Amino acid sequence: MNKVNLAEKLAMIGDHWNPRIVGELNGQHVKLAKFQGEFVWHDHADEDEMFLVLNGGFRMDFRDRSVELTAGEFLIVPKGVEHRPVAIEEVEVMLFEPAAIQHTGEVDSPLTVRNWERI
Amino acid sequence: MNKVNLAEKLAMIGDHWNPRIVGELNGQHVKLAKFQGEFVWHDHADEDEMFLVLNGGFRMDFRDRSVELTAGEFLIVPKGVEHRPVAIEEVEVMLFEPAAIQHTGEVDSPLTVRNWERI
Repeated sequence: MNKVNLAEKLAMIGDHWNPRIVGELNGQHVKLAKFQGEFVWHDHADEDEMFLVLNGGFRMDFRDRSVELTAGEFLIVPKGVEHRPVAIEEVEVMLFEPAAIQHTGEVDSPLTVRNWERI
Repeated sequence: MNKVNLAEKLAMIGDHWNPRIVGELNGQHVKLAKFQGEFVWHDHADEDEMFLVLNGGFRMDFRDRSVELTAGEFLIVPKGVEHRPVAIEEVEVMLFEPAAIQHTGEVDSPLTVRNWERI
């Protein structure tokens, strides 16, 4: 029951595309990440995923369209929907997703994180 | 798969202690609320609850201590733990909690909301 300060946690993250766990509730994880560049196309068969932009902005590509997000906006990607985040400049993002989620779904990528780190 | 702008949704909320649903994923709700004044003591037997401060600040009272929260900070209140939010001035808060949650747990209060409104 200690509070979490987002800026303090974000200051501990020095890489991109590597979400860290900062909270857990009801089988869900709250994560923080920095994105920059282009991620891999993937989907999550069983998990919806929420992206809340804290600072900066990024584009979420879907196969048929894209959504531009900026600070103070969030997007929920439903299970089974292929998506690819793309950030021209560094963006700070809060994620909300089930604890069981795989980073890149069934896709194996050099960017895939297999063990979620807690900070 | 439409994005949600927090400021636009918050502008639609004109009352206090009445969280509105702005997103749903994995059986959880994302809600926005404005708090001002003192809420009622309550707990949720089966649900953890997350409070993320967007603007302003408030105090979460527990039976044995209090936690002061300001913008950019969040707190997870575990299931079964009595709590009471108190806001001296108006504060804007994002909530994450299971869709099945009761507003004031087993407590019946004039402040109790029984039907969550979506905005």
